[in-house]
Amino acid sequence: MNFASDNIAGVHPRIMEALQSANAGFSPSYGADDLTASLEARLKDIFETDLAVFPVATGSAANCLALSALSPPWGAIYCHDHAHIFDDECCGPEFYTGGAKLYPVEAEHGRLTVEGLRAGLGRFKAGFDHHPQPAAISLTQCTEWGAVYPVDRIAALSDLAHAHGCRVHMDGARFANALASLDVSPAEMTWKAGVDALSFGATKNGAMAAEAVIFFDTDLAKDFIYRRKRAGHLFSKMRFLSAQLLAYLEDDLWLENARHANRAAARLHDGLARLNSVAFAAPVEANELFVALPEDTAALLREAGASFHTMSKDGRDVSRLVTSFATGDDEVDRFIGICGG
Amino acid sequence: MNFASDNIAGVHPRIMEALQSANAGFSPSYGADDLTASLEARLKDIFETDLAVFPVATGSAANCLALSALSPPWGAIYCHDHAHIFDDECCGPEFYTGGAKLYPVEAEHGRLTVEGLRAGLGRFKAGFDHHPQPAAISLTQCTEWGAVYPVDRIAALSDLAHAHGCRVHMDGARFANALASLDVSPAEMTWKAGVDALSFGATKNGAMAAEAVIFFDTDLAKDFIYRRKRAGHLFSKMRFLSAQLLAYLEDDLWLENARHANRAAARLHDGLARLNSVAFAAPVEANELFVALPEDTAALLREAGASFHTMSKDGRDVSRLVTSFATGDDEVDRFIGICGG
Amino acid sequence: MNFASDNIAGVHPRIMEALQSANAGFSPSYGADDLTASLEARLKDIFETDLAVFPVATGSAANCLALSALSPPWGAIYCHDHAHIFDDECCGPEFYTGGAKLYPVEAEHGRLTVEGLRAGLGRFKAGFDHHPQPAAISLTQCTEWGAVYPVDRIAALSDLAHAHGCRVHMDGARFANALASLDVSPAEMTWKAGVDALSFGATKNGAMAAEAVIFFDTDLAKDFIYRRKRAGHLFSKMRFLSAQLLAYLEDDLWLENARHANRAAARLHDGLARLNSVAFAAPVEANELFVALPEDTAALLREAGASFHTMSKDGRDVSRLVTSFATGDDEVDRFIGICGG
Amino acid sequence: MNFASDNIAGVHPRIMEALQSANAGFSPSYGADDLTASLEARLKDIFETDLAVFPVATGSAANCLALSALSPPWGAIYCHDHAHIFDDECCGPEFYTGGAKLYPVEAEHGRLTVEGLRAGLGRFKAGFDHHPQPAAISLTQCTEWGAVYPVDRIAALSDLAHAHGCRVHMDGARFANALASLDVSPAEMTWKAGVDALSFGATKNGAMAAEAVIFFDTDLAKDFIYRRKRAGHLFSKMRFLSAQLLAYLEDDLWLENARHANRAAARLHDGLARLNSVAFAAPVEANELFVALPEDTAALLREAGASFHTMSKDGRDVSRLVTSFATGDDEVDRFIGICGG
Repeated sequence: MNFASDNIAGVHPRIMEALQSANAGFSPSYGADDLTASLEARLKDIFETDLAVFPVATGSAANCLALSALSPPWGAIYCHDHAHIFDDECCGPEFYTGGAKLYPVEAEHGRLTVEGLRAGLGRFKAGFDHHPQPAAISLTQCTEWGAVYPVDRIAALSDLAHAHGCRVHMDGARFANALASLDVSPAEMTWKAGVDALSFGATKNGAMAAEAVIFFDTDLAKDFIYRRKRAGHLFSKMRFLSAQLLAYLEDDLWLENARHANRAAARLHDGLARLNSVAFAAPVEANELFVALPEDTAALLREAGASFHTMSKDGRDVSRLVTSFATGDDEVDRFIGICGG
Repeated sequence: MNFASDNIAGVHPRIMEALQSANAGFSPSYGADDLTASLEARLKDIFETDLAVFPVATGSAANCLALSALSPPWGAIYCHDHAHIFDDECCGPEFYTGGAKLYPVEAEHGRLTVEGLRAGLGRFKAGFDHHPQPAAISLTQCTEWGAVYPVDRIAALSDLAHAHGCRVHMDGARFANALASLDVSPAEMTWKAGVDALSFGATKNGAMAAEAVIFFDTDLAKDFIYRRKRAGHLFSKMRFLSAQLLAYLEDDLWLENARHANRAAARLHDGLARLNSVAFAAPVEANELFVALPEDTAALLREAGASFHTMSKDGRDVSRLVTSFATGDDEVDRFIGICGG
Repeated sequence: MNFASDNIAGVHPRIMEALQSANAGFSPSYGADDLTASLEARLKDIFETDLAVFPVATGSAANCLALSALSPPWGAIYCHDHAHIFDDECCGPEFYTGGAKLYPVEAEHGRLTVEGLRAGLGRFKAGFDHHPQPAAISLTQCTEWGAVYPVDRIAALSDLAHAHGCRVHMDGARFANALASLDVSPAEMTWKAGVDALSFGATKNGAMAAEAVIFFDTDLAKDFIYRRKRAGHLFSKMRFLSAQLLAYLEDDLWLENARHANRAAARLHDGLARLNSVAFAAPVEANELFVALPEDTAALLREAGASFHTMSKDGRDVSRLVTSFATGDDEVDRFIGICGG
Repeated sequence: MNFASDNIAGVHPRIMEALQSANAGFSPSYGADDLTASLEARLKDIFETDLAVFPVATGSAANCLALSALSPPWGAIYCHDHAHIFDDECCGPEFYTGGAKLYPVEAEHGRLTVEGLRAGLGRFKAGFDHHPQPAAISLTQCTEWGAVYPVDRIAALSDLAHAHGCRVHMDGARFANALASLDVSPAEMTWKAGVDALSFGATKNGAMAAEAVIFFDTDLAKDFIYRRKRAGHLFSKMRFLSAQLLAYLEDDLWLENARHANRAAARLHDGLARLNSVAFAAPVEANELFVALPEDTAALLREAGASFHTMSKDGRDVSRLVTSFATGDDEVDRFIGICGG
């Protein structure tokens, strides 16, 4: 019963096999290998557009590097108050951008609202040198509270951002889970809705350590190789990053894994919802649940070996339950059983 | 009728004379001169304690340099949402600290509240490497909304900050105005109330371009000379910065100027308060007023040559009126007269 | 005949197996797993001392993060003019340190000389705020020109550095190759000779992507978790980094691999030395050769499919030949054969 | 007999008067005043071209801000090994650029040579992400060893730099001294010879604290207001910076002062040259002399109250003698007299 995070799961067997296969013989280093070339082609197919892609190994690296390409050191980057980039990257975005300010705007369950963004954009005046300069917005899909942006919300926020000269970043650490939840195409959820740059996550959904920074506006990518290298995120044996991502995309493994995780979350939701004792603090739209567990239930669960984190949301303690491609129905059912008393 | 800011005034004649006097003969550069040595001694007297002082020429330099000595690049600095360091220094604190995060906490008229700070401190967990690390708080005295922190509030906030391992910075761009308002000693308003580092402003109150960074905990100053130099804020002809500050302190010119400005603000307040047409958006405690002027009154005032800025506070437009050492009663009265119709 | 670099080889089978084994079940993320704990214990054994260790995935990350813990933003870091940190990390050390200056000092075949370092240390005056402040030296073992520092040279440089208040960093991208070459203990080549921080490389010698930053002075490690996280180098599925490093150390695989590569280099050296046509531009002491190949020989080699880089050393073009754990005798012999005409 | 630096002199009386005059009445802050507008117009006249100008208060600020507009954080900036930006700004350029590398190239008496620059440019490959990217060159006019670049050398270096995609910066801390020495026009010594950005110094030549960053390619200036503000170098009472610079330029005061200083240096040179005891370590072309003084002569001079610095040049100790607008013939003659024994 490990619901602590989706990153406590290991590597999907098909991805592990791909690492094995990639290990044959010598291969040019630093991304000049065939697998990396194939990855770019594959992603262009999947996203139905030209794009520039850069594999990296962590989500924080993907986010920070992407944002550094979107904002000058004196830029304002609008996000929600509990965005991963705001709370959980130890000032990484500030470091990578050279000092940009992350400005939290109103959101519901982590989803920025158009009104909130408008208010935030009104705070700092473009062209006025005393103010941070509006530069970018960052949307997390799925959000840190487990919600999923519908496509039209992404489009509305992007339109507003672009109208103010801001670029649009999507933190897609759980991109596949959102995509599976919405059942739209990758293109629809990104560039067709105005997204300029995407942190495309794979690690939480079955890879060992592989993410990709994707620019739909390839002009934004022009300095990226320098940004990546000086940050120590250029891998010499790059083929092993690309191999993970290729296997992740092969035969829709990414969507299969995401659907599995989402189904496990839904099962957990349904089971808990039938009990009167558990309150939901956020909608369950992908693979995360935020629930207020009675204290004694929480204690029983932990005694029984269940793992999960407890955090504060809107002033009260909530427990976060995350499912993954590796979550078994039995775990879910045991958890529900204990909650049921 | 120029109420746009206190920095639209020139230099006080006694400070201008001091610059003249300082111009005699050769003098060692970079702070090895006699005037700079005298300044340190003088400030120790005035603050009744040991301290380290570094003259600089702008308030932003003082703030940014001071904060860089209080926070690591991954630090969280708590301030209010419209602090000068947050809004009006174009990401300077982020630049100087190497990436620290300024986190806005609840305040009333720019004064942090103990509850707000406590909530802010609760956001980021010390020792948890995903989070920005609680490092410092910054109080603006007088605040950006013209309010003055009473000494006991400073002490309460400092105590809370110190209990969480945070350092206390005071942005004293209008330090003298606050001091004159509270009628306490410099020591009482600073280190006795827990302040570790002070941006001691003089420019807005009669200097040409002179501020001082003062550390009451002199350990914090150990790297300061390098921070100042690499930022281009070490003046070769330092004697002219020190001369300004010495003249500013001589015979209590600083307090005299501040009292003059505060009296002018009080006169403006009293005159406007007698009219029913003007609403005050913040308490008038030093040399700034924030008023909601009827639209036609504002238009009449501007026609008559009055200068002032209009900004948004708590969702409505307010006009800021700032008085200085150079504000004349006649200007004040003319302004009131026009408002009176 | 791929002698382009040691990073064109893949992953050693025993390391690949270890990744497989590490993939069983759930595991706490971000380094709280058992393998990571074991790694620390294992390295303390191997280095016969207390130490702090942080696995990362690239050598540039290891170097830049380590240096950022040794130097303030205004520090001077002494290295040789073709050090990897100087030439080949795209200003990464400057980025991570927040602006430190890398100052090249005299070296022979990449090995700093005591005289060169003394001259470098004399350039910038400690305590003088106009100057970069002497902060650290960085030694590459093996050097970028394939040479190996004898232990007494490391000790002499460390002594001099420490006497000037500088810390000592070793870039050990090819640490095992140097160790195998010198046939001394890890302790003798590092902390016993004065090294404070080590970039312990494994990728070039059989790992997939795994290095470790090791601090022998554990005080230097106190902020490291924040530096690593904000840079995006904290891996969620850390067990897979630690698993690589553990397998690398298990049963002396690291030394076995290094000895293999060194032997291949020696074989290549001996074969080429017997020909009159090839001049050596640097001593062959580990797994790299720098040779001046006749133009027609180089052309023949490339035609036959040989891979190697050509670069400028001391004003003339030299070809670099790097062997690895995966280099076969047959490749070596074919290469020699073609050179022999 | 104060020859320690030109910055030990005070403020020229005409500049002090200008500060007095500028002090009348209120004036818009942050550069919206009339004097600042006049300054821009005046400099366009003097340089016979369109340009963008930004007054700042220190030479280090001017250099660091200018360079930050010319180089990305991963840029290489070529300069000589004792350039002020290399040695004497405490890693300021690295701080402001966000991590660029200053790379020293061969020079004679501080003047870069075309061959030296060519070799430096060959070190780092444009477009190769492992390398710092060639971004800018910086020429100091007069050099740190008192030499003056002839116009054709500037042009040759600029041509080479531009051909490699690099921008050209001139550190003109002693711009007027060089101009007076060469007797050419400001345009000829700058943009006509390929200079893109200039740190135009005035402090060393009679101002209190005033320099100007001038961009001849005004595109380079587009972000400058943000760079200046976030660094704390935007002055609220800007009129006092502009007033200094206007008075400096008025009636050719700047050239008059420079000619005075240069003449004093020539007088000192001629007097010392007649003695057999003093060797010159650099050509005397403006207002600085570098001489090897016999030890007992140096002692006698210091006893008699002479001030000057001693430093290492090309491996031997030399004394630097700097003259200024305030140097008197009597001082010069006394100094020569003592040297004559």
